[in-house]
Amino acid sequence: MRVAIIGFGAVGQGVAAVLADPVHGFTLTGVADSRSAIMNGDGLNPEEILAKKKETGLCGIEGKSAADILASGVFDILVEASPTNANGGEPATSLIRSTLRSGRHVVTSNKGPIASAYHELKAIADEQKVGLGYEATVAGAVPVINGIRHGLAGNTIRSLYGILNGTCNYILTRMRDEGLTYQQALQEARDLGYAEADPTYDVKGIDAAIKLVILANTLLGMNVTLSDVDISGIDLVTVEALNLAEDEGSTVRLIGEIIPERKIIRVSPRVLALDHPLVVDGTLNAIQVCTDMAGHVTFIGRGAGAQPTASAILADLISIRDYYGGRS
Amino acid sequence: MRVAIIGFGAVGQGVAAVLADPVHGFTLTGVADSRSAIMNGDGLNPEEILAKKKETGLCGIEGKSAADILASGVFDILVEASPTNANGGEPATSLIRSTLRSGRHVVTSNKGPIASAYHELKAIADEQKVGLGYEATVAGAVPVINGIRHGLAGNTIRSLYGILNGTCNYILTRMRDEGLTYQQALQEARDLGYAEADPTYDVKGIDAAIKLVILANTLLGMNVTLSDVDISGIDLVTVEALNLAEDEGSTVRLIGEIIPERKIIRVSPRVLALDHPLVVDGTLNAIQVCTDMAGHVTFIGRGAGAQPTASAILADLISIRDYYGGRS
Repeated sequence: MRVAIIGFGAVGQGVAAVLADPVHGFTLTGVADSRSAIMNGDGLNPEEILAKKKETGLCGIEGKSAADILASGVFDILVEASPTNANGGEPATSLIRSTLRSGRHVVTSNKGPIASAYHELKAIADEQKVGLGYEATVAGAVPVINGIRHGLAGNTIRSLYGILNGTCNYILTRMRDEGLTYQQALQEARDLGYAEADPTYDVKGIDAAIKLVILANTLLGMNVTLSDVDISGIDLVTVEALNLAEDEGSTVRLIGEIIPERKIIRVSPRVLALDHPLVVDGTLNAIQVCTDMAGHVTFIGRGAGAQPTASAILADLISIRDYYGGRS
Repeated sequence: MRVAIIGFGAVGQGVAAVLADPVHGFTLTGVADSRSAIMNGDGLNPEEILAKKKETGLCGIEGKSAADILASGVFDILVEASPTNANGGEPATSLIRSTLRSGRHVVTSNKGPIASAYHELKAIADEQKVGLGYEATVAGAVPVINGIRHGLAGNTIRSLYGILNGTCNYILTRMRDEGLTYQQALQEARDLGYAEADPTYDVKGIDAAIKLVILANTLLGMNVTLSDVDISGIDLVTVEALNLAEDEGSTVRLIGEIIPERKIIRVSPRVLALDHPLVVDGTLNAIQVCTDMAGHVTFIGRGAGAQPTASAILADLISIRDYYGGRS
């Protein structure tokens, strides 16, 4: 199957690097970054494009864009890997909508469109009998979407708890382990590239809340938006609070929580026993669901980074190929 | 789709109870236990059969058997839920083989056939274009097969570590937490129904080794048998050894391990740091894979019990229906 990649930052480049390996059996036919694009229905050379991007900052021809790739139609699956725009997911949502309407599959790592328009996009995908993959939008490489949807099919999810933001988890881990203040741990996270220059989005709990909206709408049959989430961040967590928890064999972590029956959907710092499965270290992510039949099931792994995210995108690409591209 | 259940102990009865809920959309058309069977192409009443089993010890008509259900052909998916026979998986393997050859799907919770004949059975299933589900054979409700196969598709597994036997994990947890001796903890596990009267199969590491063979052959592309596994059990673990580990912030757990590149496949008691993701309590199971792209991913949950096993079987039933029963 032919794949076009829109958004050519770390994730898009990671996907291109993966597609360069012929073992996966996909052909790269289009790439667009914010300022350029290139397409060829017979296939592009991923390594050449990666080299060009590295050298010139552009993946293709200046002035060409994602719209030209869409218009060309030289692809079967669109990988939408542009960065999440906190303000509602545009222009990615429109791009995904028109791609699905044209009868083509979409795989995305972009939280915006899935958090803001999942039910609409899924309805279009179903109508057109095409796939919509979004494993990469939550918890990076951790196969939480596929794991729950396929592995726990038929179960009713009674509650979901998650460590959904690696930056916050890193800061809280370092505050506990090294006795750093919030500001010191944040600075360290910045120095290591785990936190943005403006960390508001992470430390205020907004990123975790967006992922919670995605999980609620896609796996728990809910229909909520970001404004439905009760959000507190970690910026007011003190070393004293951590020490107090520690004295009781516990620690503080930023937990996203959904309990559909009680209409609870919130992100907040919570005290957890040190041996609780969700107490994971550093930038790891963890999700625990409690279901009617399977009981508690926990998934732990890398929540961010180009390779883990590319892994999730590749899994979606393979799912779509296996399901739609002929049964084996 | 019409489902027949072969083997009507705790797991088979758990599946029948699940199928009684019309929300799942399956029709029960055959049930066999070791001494009786019943079938009806128009559908059986799961609740009536469960009541009869409870009352009389038989699910159907004495003298009828699984062979009669197979011969009748009144089912689309066979759920093979008879207990694992340590001596090579018969008669279940033959039953599964002929069902697949007749062009019908099979879902099984029986480790024997998958550990001893996976590659042969999968080849028949592929040839007949039918499904072969075995999520329930490893780690009960934990969606490790589906989670890895679908969620980490395209990844290469470099190593796999797992807590694959809940009985052993329970005994080691109690020895550590309460300072019980091995014999005391084993007796407690027996009293609670976590260990068999003859616990050899569990405590000698054989059950974990069989699950390791399944994981190796189905997910890691290997072709091994039980005799390839280097096995040590937990029966020689002492309180002193646990105390020694404890002094260093560690504990002892029975770990199954596969490192394909180094041709390592073994089950043995190992010292793990207390905050290692595989250190789970009580009868829980945990599996950690390390892959080229996703890094370390860990799955934790209930490894045994009628409901968790029924959950895994239901997930396989739904997968088969969604994939083979018409695309949505």
